[in-house]
Amino acid sequence: MFDLAIIGGGPAGYTAAERATAQGLSTVLFEKNAMGGVCLNEGCIPTKTLLYSAKLYHNALVGEKYGISVQNASFDYAKIVARKNKIVRKLNAGIRAKMTAGNVNVVTGKAVVQNYSEQKIEILCNETVFEAKNLLLCTGSQTFVPKIKGVENVEFLTSREALEIKELPASIVIVGGGVIGMEFAGLFHTFGVKTDVVEMANEILPPFDSEIAALLRAEYQKQGIEFFLNTKVTEIQQDKVIFIDNENNEKTLETEKILLCAGRKPTLDGLKNLNLELSRNGVKVDSNMQTSLRNVYAAGDITGFSMLAHTAVREAEVAVSQIVGIAEAMNYEAVPAVVYTNPEVAGVGKTENELWGENAVYSVKKLPMTFSGRFVAENEGGNGLCKLLFDEKERLIGAHLIGNPASELIATATLAIKQHLDIEQFKKLIFPHPSVGEIFKETLF
Amino acid sequence: MFDLAIIGGGPAGYTAAERATAQGLSTVLFEKNAMGGVCLNEGCIPTKTLLYSAKLYHNALVGEKYGISVQNASFDYAKIVARKNKIVRKLNAGIRAKMTAGNVNVVTGKAVVQNYSEQKIEILCNETVFEAKNLLLCTGSQTFVPKIKGVENVEFLTSREALEIKELPASIVIVGGGVIGMEFAGLFHTFGVKTDVVEMANEILPPFDSEIAALLRAEYQKQGIEFFLNTKVTEIQQDKVIFIDNENNEKTLETEKILLCAGRKPTLDGLKNLNLELSRNGVKVDSNMQTSLRNVYAAGDITGFSMLAHTAVREAEVAVSQIVGIAEAMNYEAVPAVVYTNPEVAGVGKTENELWGENAVYSVKKLPMTFSGRFVAENEGGNGLCKLLFDEKERLIGAHLIGNPASELIATATLAIKQHLDIEQFKKLIFPHPSVGEIFKETLF
Repeated sequence: MFDLAIIGGGPAGYTAAERATAQGLSTVLFEKNAMGGVCLNEGCIPTKTLLYSAKLYHNALVGEKYGISVQNASFDYAKIVARKNKIVRKLNAGIRAKMTAGNVNVVTGKAVVQNYSEQKIEILCNETVFEAKNLLLCTGSQTFVPKIKGVENVEFLTSREALEIKELPASIVIVGGGVIGMEFAGLFHTFGVKTDVVEMANEILPPFDSEIAALLRAEYQKQGIEFFLNTKVTEIQQDKVIFIDNENNEKTLETEKILLCAGRKPTLDGLKNLNLELSRNGVKVDSNMQTSLRNVYAAGDITGFSMLAHTAVREAEVAVSQIVGIAEAMNYEAVPAVVYTNPEVAGVGKTENELWGENAVYSVKKLPMTFSGRFVAENEGGNGLCKLLFDEKERLIGAHLIGNPASELIATATLAIKQHLDIEQFKKLIFPHPSVGEIFKETLF
Repeated sequence: MFDLAIIGGGPAGYTAAERATAQGLSTVLFEKNAMGGVCLNEGCIPTKTLLYSAKLYHNALVGEKYGISVQNASFDYAKIVARKNKIVRKLNAGIRAKMTAGNVNVVTGKAVVQNYSEQKIEILCNETVFEAKNLLLCTGSQTFVPKIKGVENVEFLTSREALEIKELPASIVIVGGGVIGMEFAGLFHTFGVKTDVVEMANEILPPFDSEIAALLRAEYQKQGIEFFLNTKVTEIQQDKVIFIDNENNEKTLETEKILLCAGRKPTLDGLKNLNLELSRNGVKVDSNMQTSLRNVYAAGDITGFSMLAHTAVREAEVAVSQIVGIAEAMNYEAVPAVVYTNPEVAGVGKTENELWGENAVYSVKKLPMTFSGRFVAENEGGNGLCKLLFDEKERLIGAHLIGNPASELIATATLAIKQHLDIEQFKKLIFPHPSVGEIFKETLF
C-alpha cells in the first residue's frame, strides 16, 4: 500500500510527487498522457515558445527605430512549431528524470478510483489495482466549449489544436478575450493572420485591472487586431462567426478559422466513486487542500479556483505538508497572474474592481512606465503603466503592470504583498539602475 | 539662506533635491554640466540604449534558431548613437521638469565652497555667493587613468569618449575587465569590432561572484572576444597595448583604438576649504551620510564606496532624512549590482569570496538557468546559473545570476535578503509560471 497516490502528472501532480518522496512517502503517480499536464504540453510552455519567435519576428520588423535594418524578414512556421515540440519534449524528459531521481512510481494510464475508505483507497489503472492511504487529485482542467449553435458540426480550434497547426490561416476569429485568447491573438496577428476578437464582457481580460486591459486592447487595435466587446455569439459556421454586437445588431465575421477560448472546466472523470463535495467551480477544498474526505486532497485546476500552474504547484506543496503533518495553509493573497502578450500584462493581489466590490478603503498610485529610463531605452515609442494599490494602513495590496518585462517584474511586488510591506518599507528597497523594475520605486513616491 | 545646498546634479543630487523640497527645505542645486550626472549623460542610460540596439542586431543574426530569417541584417551606428542622444535629452528634460515642479533652485555652474561654519556655508558659483545651513556633496566620480607609460601622449578612449564615437573602429583593446569594460566589449564585438580585453586580476568582474564571471568570460570567448588575464599593462602607444602576460612574457596587441576602463575616482574639486576627513576611497561618512562636519553630508560616488547610481539615490534619501530629523541609516546588505552584458549578470549581498574572507559559515545552492522552462523557451542553446548563499540560519544572504533578464530578476532576491527570509519562507513565494524568476524557487529546493 502506497502512502500517497496522485492522479495527474501536471505541475500540481509532479510537484507533489517530488515533495512527497522527499518527505519519505512512498508515492505512485498516474498520468494518462504525457507528464507535465496541460501546462507543459498544450499550455504555458508551448505558447511562450511560439510567442518568443513572434517577438523576435516583430523586433526584426521594427528594428529601424533602433538603428537596425533587415531585409526580407520571414518566418518558417512549421520550424517554429517543431522547435516548440522539441522544447516540450526536453522539459518533459526533465520531469521524468526528476520522478526517477525521486523514486516516484509513475504509471501511464487512465486512473479510476474504485473503492474508498478512510483506511484505504483503491485505484484501478491498466487493469491493476493500486492501494494508497492518501489520495491527491490533480486531474486538472479541460477546455470549456460553450453551447453555441453549430459547435457540434464545425471544426473549430481550441487552444490545443491552435498550438498544433503547422500552416497559418489567412484569418481567424477568436471567441473569448481572456488570457488564452489574447496570447493567441498576439501570436497570430504578429505572423500576419487577420485577427478578430469577440468578447462577451465589456472589456478583455476580465479578471485583470480593467484600465490595464484597456491599454493592451488599445495597443493591439493600433497593431491592427479588431475587437468586438459586449457581444453574444449566437452561431458558428465553418467559415463564419455570428454574434449580437454591442448595439444589439446581428453581425457576421467571415473567417478561415475559429478559435474558441471561452474558459476551462475542471476534469472530474474517474472520481465518481469518491462522492466528493463540489464547490461552484470544482472540487471543494479547505485551506489545507483537503476535500470533504479526510484522506483525499486536491490541488490545481480541479479546484476551479485559480487555473494557474503556479497556484497548482503551491497548492500541491500545501497538500503534501498537510499529509506529512506540517502545519501550512494555502494563501491566495499574493498569487501573480501574467498575460504573455507583447507588451506583457501582469497583476498580483487585489484589483480596484474587487476593492469596489468589497467597499474597501484603498488608495492608488500610478505612473507611466516611461518614468523608467531603461523602459525608454528599450521601448521606442512604447507605453506602459504601473498601478499600485494600498490599504488604509498604506500596505501594498495590489500591483498591476503593462509593459515588458512585466512577467518578471511582478515577483518583486508579489513578495512585497506577501511581506505586507507598506509604502515606507517598500520605498527603501534598492532596485538596480537602470531597470524597468525601478518603476515600482518611482510610483511609490 | 537656503536650508540645503547640493553640489552635483546626478542621481544623488537630483533625488536629494526632490526629497528635500518635498520635506519643506528650501534647496539650491549646483550642476556644472547637464543634469543627470555621469549616470544619465555618459554612463548607465547611454550604454543601455546602445546595448539594446546591439541586442536587437544580435537577435536578428541568430533568429534562425527560432524559425525567423532575415537577409542583410545591418546597423547604422551613427543613427544608434543619435537615438542614444535623443533618449538622454528626453530623460534630462524629465529631471529638469521634476526640479521645476519641486521648486528646486537649479544653478548651472561650477560650485566652490568658500567658507564653512556650523551656522553657515558659503558657496561661490557664477560669481555669486550662496548661503546654506546644510550642504550635501554629490560631486560624483571621474575616470581613473592609471599611470601607464604613454597615457600622456596617446589618444585613448575612456567610457565617455567611447559613447560618442560615430564610426566604429576595426579593432579595440579594452584595458580593464570590470563592469564598464565588459559592457563595451559586448557592444563593440556585437557590432563586428575585433575586441580584446586585458585585465590585471585573474578573472574579469572582480567584485562579482567569480564562478559567474568565468561563465560570462567563457560565453564571450565563444563569441570571439579574446581575454588576457593576470596581466600588467606596461605601455600604450597610439596603435599598441604592451603588457606582461600571465606567463611573464611581454606581449603586444596591435589595435585601432584603446579603451581604458581601469576604474573611477571620486571628484573632490572645489571642496578644499571644507577640510573633510577622507576614507581610503573618498569622503568619509557615517551611516547617516554625515561627513566629519556636522552640517555637511555626502552621497554617491564621492564616498568611493559603491559607485552605483542606485546606491547614490538611497544614500541621498538617507542624508535628507537625517537633515529633516527622520532616523534612518544607510544599509548596504541588499544593494544589487548588474552587468548589462548579453547574457546579463547580476548579484546582490555577499559573495563566496567575501564569506571566505570573513571565515563565515554559509551554504550554497545552485542550479543552471535551464531549469526554468521559460529560460529554455527564450534561450536556444543558452546557459546560465543561479547561485544562492545562506547563513547558518539558512537566511538568504547572497544571490548571483547569469542569464537574461538577470537585471530585472535580482530585485526579488534583493527584497528577500532585505527581509531576512530563510529558505522555508522564500520557498513559499509564488512566482508566475512560466517565468525565468522561477529559477529562485527551483534553486531553493
